[in-house]
Amino acid sequence: MSTTSASSARPGTPVPDATGPDAAVDHAAATAPDGTASPAGRTPAAPSSAATPAEPGGLDTDRLQELLLGRWAAVRREARENVKDPALHRIEGLSLAEHRDRVLGQLQLLVDLGAVQRAYPAALGGADDHGGNIAAFVELVTADPSLQIKSGVQWGLFGAAILHLGTRRHHEAWLPQAMSLELPGVFAMTEIGHGSDVASLGTTATYVPETDEFEIHTPFKAAWKDYLGNAALHGRAAVVFAQLITRGVNHGVHAFFVPLRDATGAFLPGVGGEDDGLKGGLNGIDNGRLHFDHVRVPRTHLLDRYGSVDAEGAYSSPIDSPGRRFFTMIGTLVQGRVSLALSGAAASALALKGAITYGNERRQFNASSETHEEVLLDYQLHQRRLIDRLARTYADALAANELLEKFDAVFSGEADTDDDRQELETLAAAIKPLATWNALDTLQECREACGGAGFMARNRFTSLRADLDVFVTFEGDNNVLLQLVGKRLLADYSRELSGFSVGALSRFVVAHATNAVVHRSGLRRVAQSVHDAGSERKSANWFKETDVQRALLEDRVRTKTGAVAQALLPVARRSRAEQAATFNRHQTELIDAARNHAELLEWEAFTRALESVEDPHTRQVLTWLRDLFALRVIEDDLGWFLENGRISPQRARTLRQYINRLAYRLRPHAQDLVDAWGYEPEHVRMDVATGEEARRQTEAAEYHRRQRASGDAPVPERSLRTASPRR
Amino acid sequence: MSTTSASSARPGTPVPDATGPDAAVDHAAATAPDGTASPAGRTPAAPSSAATPAEPGGLDTDRLQELLLGRWAAVRREARENVKDPALHRIEGLSLAEHRDRVLGQLQLLVDLGAVQRAYPAALGGADDHGGNIAAFVELVTADPSLQIKSGVQWGLFGAAILHLGTRRHHEAWLPQAMSLELPGVFAMTEIGHGSDVASLGTTATYVPETDEFEIHTPFKAAWKDYLGNAALHGRAAVVFAQLITRGVNHGVHAFFVPLRDATGAFLPGVGGEDDGLKGGLNGIDNGRLHFDHVRVPRTHLLDRYGSVDAEGAYSSPIDSPGRRFFTMIGTLVQGRVSLALSGAAASALALKGAITYGNERRQFNASSETHEEVLLDYQLHQRRLIDRLARTYADALAANELLEKFDAVFSGEADTDDDRQELETLAAAIKPLATWNALDTLQECREACGGAGFMARNRFTSLRADLDVFVTFEGDNNVLLQLVGKRLLADYSRELSGFSVGALSRFVVAHATNAVVHRSGLRRVAQSVHDAGSERKSANWFKETDVQRALLEDRVRTKTGAVAQALLPVARRSRAEQAATFNRHQTELIDAARNHAELLEWEAFTRALESVEDPHTRQVLTWLRDLFALRVIEDDLGWFLENGRISPQRARTLRQYINRLAYRLRPHAQDLVDAWGYEPEHVRMDVATGEEARRQTEAAEYHRRQRASGDAPVPERSLRTASPRR
Repeated sequence: MSTTSASSARPGTPVPDATGPDAAVDHAAATAPDGTASPAGRTPAAPSSAATPAEPGGLDTDRLQELLLGRWAAVRREARENVKDPALHRIEGLSLAEHRDRVLGQLQLLVDLGAVQRAYPAALGGADDHGGNIAAFVELVTADPSLQIKSGVQWGLFGAAILHLGTRRHHEAWLPQAMSLELPGVFAMTEIGHGSDVASLGTTATYVPETDEFEIHTPFKAAWKDYLGNAALHGRAAVVFAQLITRGVNHGVHAFFVPLRDATGAFLPGVGGEDDGLKGGLNGIDNGRLHFDHVRVPRTHLLDRYGSVDAEGAYSSPIDSPGRRFFTMIGTLVQGRVSLALSGAAASALALKGAITYGNERRQFNASSETHEEVLLDYQLHQRRLIDRLARTYADALAANELLEKFDAVFSGEADTDDDRQELETLAAAIKPLATWNALDTLQECREACGGAGFMARNRFTSLRADLDVFVTFEGDNNVLLQLVGKRLLADYSRELSGFSVGALSRFVVAHATNAVVHRSGLRRVAQSVHDAGSERKSANWFKETDVQRALLEDRVRTKTGAVAQALLPVARRSRAEQAATFNRHQTELIDAARNHAELLEWEAFTRALESVEDPHTRQVLTWLRDLFALRVIEDDLGWFLENGRISPQRARTLRQYINRLAYRLRPHAQDLVDAWGYEPEHVRMDVATGEEARRQTEAAEYHRRQRASGDAPVPERSLRTASPRR
Repeated sequence: MSTTSASSARPGTPVPDATGPDAAVDHAAATAPDGTASPAGRTPAAPSSAATPAEPGGLDTDRLQELLLGRWAAVRREARENVKDPALHRIEGLSLAEHRDRVLGQLQLLVDLGAVQRAYPAALGGADDHGGNIAAFVELVTADPSLQIKSGVQWGLFGAAILHLGTRRHHEAWLPQAMSLELPGVFAMTEIGHGSDVASLGTTATYVPETDEFEIHTPFKAAWKDYLGNAALHGRAAVVFAQLITRGVNHGVHAFFVPLRDATGAFLPGVGGEDDGLKGGLNGIDNGRLHFDHVRVPRTHLLDRYGSVDAEGAYSSPIDSPGRRFFTMIGTLVQGRVSLALSGAAASALALKGAITYGNERRQFNASSETHEEVLLDYQLHQRRLIDRLARTYADALAANELLEKFDAVFSGEADTDDDRQELETLAAAIKPLATWNALDTLQECREACGGAGFMARNRFTSLRADLDVFVTFEGDNNVLLQLVGKRLLADYSRELSGFSVGALSRFVVAHATNAVVHRSGLRRVAQSVHDAGSERKSANWFKETDVQRALLEDRVRTKTGAVAQALLPVARRSRAEQAATFNRHQTELIDAARNHAELLEWEAFTRALESVEDPHTRQVLTWLRDLFALRVIEDDLGWFLENGRISPQRARTLRQYINRLAYRLRPHAQDLVDAWGYEPEHVRMDVATGEEARRQTEAAEYHRRQRASGDAPVPERSLRTASPRR
């Protein structure tokens, strides 16, 4: 089926007087574009309707790029140079086996480039550079997400688990081979039966004092390890998460180093597995299942940084509480979330690079004149589809950069208190869901905005979307992560109230319920709405104030969190089942508050970034972009703001128009704003971003020009009729 | 990378007193599910929190199935029997060439089954059954969307163009071979440069009186035909859409029968092309590009139902106006949109069948007790993710069924006035976008709701989503279609106002602007909000009244349309450019109104359907489902309803809670409601829908039970600590 519309709709044709088929005229013979489309879209030819509001250009794109690439900009640029090599690029249409082989080979290329060792100890050839390591990792997404994620399995999960959960003897024994890829490894945490609930894993590791060994065992099918990268083919060993049992006591989930395959690739005795086969994406990675039938490993294979067992089977741990110990162990895995947040933003930027470039060249329908077709990005809807998402992608990227700095501070030891770690985890749990969901949405909207061309594999939207799909559920299901954020919000809310006393919480909640918050800060001005009723300008001025945006977004999180806290209060001393039931009745509300918190964090990061820009023009444009982000977030939840009296109906009515105007103002800068990411043709590799659409239009325009000049151009039937009506 | 969460979030754990890692307890040793999960989820074991509100069952599922399958239920059941044959099923992981070969062979199987001839004339072996034809076509989506769409190219586009645009001699010459697949064909409309704007195609067909031929020519690269199914390999001929030029006049786009390849598959002289290669989905179809270098065809190859040229080159048409003629010709293609709307709903139902079955079996986290893990569908968020979409899928399906009846009435000639055709086109342009976008969203949410399992190809979500992706832009880009609906709304709005007088329109708009509409019908009661302030029950009673829902949804479309009309009024006599610019400033608003109109149409279809149900219990459940659909639609645009005084803030505050309650009430019926579609295992073919998750849980529970009975179960460290704190 052709990707045609067979459509009779004509954007831009004026109505309401177009009431029948006749009214929608046939422009078939008068559609030559004038060929002025510029390849890069820097100076899009304004149609005669003057849809282009202002001259583009003049932005300090170097400064923008510094902001977008963040503190490790130099590392990212170096990584980008590396991934220009076609040997690292995805080839579409490979078979499962070919793609897996190719990606394994690419991992070796990364080793040879010295591109993957940064996070490891200097003593072992690394650089102890945690932030830089992730910064470099992020750029792999442009080459092939399979390559990126398989390298994440090897060095970010398998190797990192040995590094963070093991001790020196483990590092010395296995890290050099893991780093060099001599020892491809598996991170065997998830089971068929337990994904999000890691504490409930079924695999057991029982200490056997007679032989000084642990026995790794899969007691039932639900406890098979599943979805594990490197498990189907390449993994020689695994870090297996299992319930540590010694002297009849279960000390909870710990990690064990377990050899899987011999040098020929055959499973060792007691180890079994299956290939997961084809997946929705990331098919360059050999995911699979593993199970263990009473497999023995030496006691020293327990990665014992947070818990160890002596030869007599006595368990000890530097962390007394089993719960806290567990969260500390899995907290070391936060880097996966950090890198997915950054990678999501990068993929969004790549997609927008393609769709905005194309939207600046492509023309369709000629509403405003007989002779010119409109550039897609001059249509209001196209602006809203792409520029809204451009604003959000900036927010994702700037917030993810701050997340990376926080991560580096914690992992380098620079700021590594319990509070720092909790803050890092909450930040990651907030930004990763937004940035990854946004990436899927942006890739899809960009694909649709390029029509049939967007569906062709050579434009990469569909392939990137398929690969990134699983980003929203792995390394923490996005909804589960947001619930984690929600619980932290509730906890902070309680803590703020003088020592967790129920009485204080109760009083605070009542104060909130009476909308006392309305009278704080910028929100007080909502009462002034009567003064600007009907004045769009005054209302817009209100919406664009940084303090107003901050107050609206902060208050929303507090109020929603407070409402959930208030609902939970009456059952705080009731049975576990009653508490759970009450919590469940407010689950959606709490996750909503968590998402709003994440949006606030992104808004804050965006605001901090733009305040660091000195060039006034650039700062102005970036402020519009931040405003667009903020007001779209508010528009999406406008019902809440109105129903709670935070925004007056008068102001709400002007909000949509103002958002349209922001997109219109930003439209001439869209190309610069997306080019500022600095992706080069070797990273983009999309036909729609090559300027070939503009070249085709130039050719067509030239044909029509020559034809007109020759006098051979056929006359449209319609124009004959206009001359001699009703023949 | 494993699809793990490595997560520390525990849904359902009561807060706010859970303020640190310690508070989130480690349940590792006490997580045995009790094994009562039922395979089909008909009687999900209620967790101790009694999250399941009522007994399921008792629905008149036969009646539901009649509603869902619509007037051609018998045809659909027959088609479903046909597609149980594994020979028609998609095999994941085939190479491009293998998949294309397989699908071509499957088309021949359909011919042999007599499954594709229904729409054709009885005289040629068909049945003149237009509605039944599409009903049968829809069911192919469960076998392989590539098979479905390639059959759509052959019989719904190529063959249908000959049927609807050609005359008897064309039917006799080519339809038998097209029907039997002896003549695989291409529908060559879309060009690289023009997709949505069909009237501006660049390909020319110039009459040459000297030889009584048309010369088909591609004047520049942008005029290459592109994205055409059957073009890369299998097409032997094409229906080519080109500008008909004779005697120096361009009569607009017409269709021509053009042979492409000889018996060996080689292009005929003057014809050239390229393979589009890999796409984002539907890779069983050989899409490609075609171009023509002064290719001559006999004059009689013009499909001349709506326009013909005599041997002297004189053009004539039964339709005088070139514009109306154009829209009449492409109006015959509406069946593509009708079938995509139905197929979108079918794919959504299939996805929900998988995810709801799994959601009724899968358990994760044990918030409410030490011994039971919660069934996913007992979580509020999971209910909202799946049951909200179940309601919407019913709405899509029921509206698409009405669309199909309308289509059949027009195409059978039963009700075939201009008004009928316009109504059909508007209906199709409204429902197709909703049903296809909803399908992508539902497939994605279902995939995420199944976690890592959802990403495996064996569960089909990702594959179906990839294939259906292009449904949202082909056969009419969804946004362009909605704009068409918006223009029809504007036209109807004007027509309603006594003969299009600007004065009347102006008065009408002013009346609207003063909110006179608030005082009509159900909306009058908004004024009563003061009486039910704080009473959730009264407010819920208001929201669930059919008349209130109708009034809210109807008024919204009218008011938004009126606002756009009002904005266009001042420029109604200005220049084309000015009109276009003004229209463009309200484009997003108009498309929003069009989407709202489509939602209203779906609501009406849903309401008509439930009013036809006699069994009171079934009707009650279906009413809840309709209410959930309606209130979710309202919730999504709550800002608008509040800002325009249609819903009071007091009522808005109860809306979300009421929606949660509806989902909770429907939860015990979710499995029945999705099973009512009647898909059998041969159609579903998803591991998550086989009951294997329940079997795994039973096995795990049995293991834990035996272990407890033996006295060998390890004691959790945490329980020791409770016994002797702070050792």
